[in-house]
Amino acid sequence: MIRVETSAELREWTAARRRAGDTVGLVPTMGYLHEGHLSLVREAKRRGHAVVMSIFVNPLQFGPNEDYDRYPRDLDRDRALAERVGVDLLFTPSVEEMYPEPLQVTLRVGSWADRLCGASRPGHFDGVVTVVAKLFHLVGPDEAFFGEKDFQQLRIVQRMVRDLNFPVAVVGCPTVREEDGLAMSSRNQYLNPEERRIASALPRALRAAQERAAEGERRSRTIIDQVEQQLRTAGLVIDYVSIVGEEDLEPVETIDRPCRLLAAVYVGKTRLIDNIALGPEKER
Amino acid sequence: MIRVETSAELREWTAARRRAGDTVGLVPTMGYLHEGHLSLVREAKRRGHAVVMSIFVNPLQFGPNEDYDRYPRDLDRDRALAERVGVDLLFTPSVEEMYPEPLQVTLRVGSWADRLCGASRPGHFDGVVTVVAKLFHLVGPDEAFFGEKDFQQLRIVQRMVRDLNFPVAVVGCPTVREEDGLAMSSRNQYLNPEERRIASALPRALRAAQERAAEGERRSRTIIDQVEQQLRTAGLVIDYVSIVGEEDLEPVETIDRPCRLLAAVYVGKTRLIDNIALGPEKER
Repeated sequence: MIRVETSAELREWTAARRRAGDTVGLVPTMGYLHEGHLSLVREAKRRGHAVVMSIFVNPLQFGPNEDYDRYPRDLDRDRALAERVGVDLLFTPSVEEMYPEPLQVTLRVGSWADRLCGASRPGHFDGVVTVVAKLFHLVGPDEAFFGEKDFQQLRIVQRMVRDLNFPVAVVGCPTVREEDGLAMSSRNQYLNPEERRIASALPRALRAAQERAAEGERRSRTIIDQVEQQLRTAGLVIDYVSIVGEEDLEPVETIDRPCRLLAAVYVGKTRLIDNIALGPEKER
Repeated sequence: MIRVETSAELREWTAARRRAGDTVGLVPTMGYLHEGHLSLVREAKRRGHAVVMSIFVNPLQFGPNEDYDRYPRDLDRDRALAERVGVDLLFTPSVEEMYPEPLQVTLRVGSWADRLCGASRPGHFDGVVTVVAKLFHLVGPDEAFFGEKDFQQLRIVQRMVRDLNFPVAVVGCPTVREEDGLAMSSRNQYLNPEERRIASALPRALRAAQERAAEGERRSRTIIDQVEQQLRTAGLVIDYVSIVGEEDLEPVETIDRPCRLLAAVYVGKTRLIDNIALGPEKER
């Protein structure tokens, strides 16, 4: 595995791989790697790509009162994990390398940025699509891999590709979970043992909702009420619980097409998100 | 010359040229071609590129009270001119092809969009960078060619490339002028003979300003006042006259570095723009 810190070296390497006839897969991350990230690399390798992983805690996607400064970082551990899982090039740019001057031109997300996680994180998705656009331009991947755990992010990045004609295919990969169902996240690191125990109520509530929908409950409101009650009973503070169309992120009243139930909660100071499919399966 | 109307055909063609070892030059236009556009094609050919010209009157960059509907169009004439000057592929997408659905993700320009032409054309430069990003992604050019006549646009597109790491070099080409100095523009078409005569006061005033600066006048305010007086005397209505840094578009008080004098005026209902270099030459 090669590690580079500059855009110039990155471009040189990808150009050489492309000349050699390789396709390139990109796994963009903020580091503090877990099995979720590694599963993205495995999928990229399975598809035969030379795999670039980026590790960059992107200040642009954090709000002023969010956890940019204390976001967990452990580059030595990440390097070892990336190498072990078969990353070919690890790109670890500095903030100065990515943002040498204040940006005059950025990407902006429309109404999709105001809902779900966007409602409590203004500017977050603008920061995400801006850094993803930069990484796409720097790497020029054939395919890029994102986890379904950040479902709204996945759909927004896919929409960005469609709206702006990026020559990249965005592949969504299933959420990887701990034994008790908690979705893997670098932020799980923040939880003390008691919070960690309480947190598992989130995936439990989502699975229960999925079962109720499978048993025939089609009213979103009913399912959302039950999920909210379950979360509160467990001691979680709700940011939002919402059911939206799988593709268009539009709130639905009746679950008569492929949908997603998405939720964000606080456990102490830590914000956790998760989501699950509801309703008829997506046709593929 | 090949003409295509769909992104799919365009991508196929550029991929084939790239496989054949060609580099690709892009000349994005809104059609109604004149010598200015053709000079961009000649420069692209001189640099050895396979040349893609796009003709697309981009609704996104017109304000609600602007001239989108009456913007001059003559595709038959444009095709003949493009073929004669050596365009290899002419891309003439429909609005439906470029914008099949409302955009959820767009590009946005910061403070540079609020000044000069941006002050009277809110949203204009957002529309420009969004469509240019789409064209860059569709064509994947090595170099893209823009006229210095739209100087603010040129600098914003160059900044977009730098800020977002587009793997494209943006080449600015000198303004091409009519015999009396009027910068070539598709909008000159709007002028009746009397307006056309009056319009030539714009380049005359800019050249006079350049001479005064060359003779040692370094006070922006003095030069701007003289230009404004000259324009008004000729019967032109001023939108703005401004002197800014050649690279940073920041207003300057003293012309002690490479600068641009930019102006926009109305002749009847027609808005015309022009610009000229002032001050010490840019180091290259």
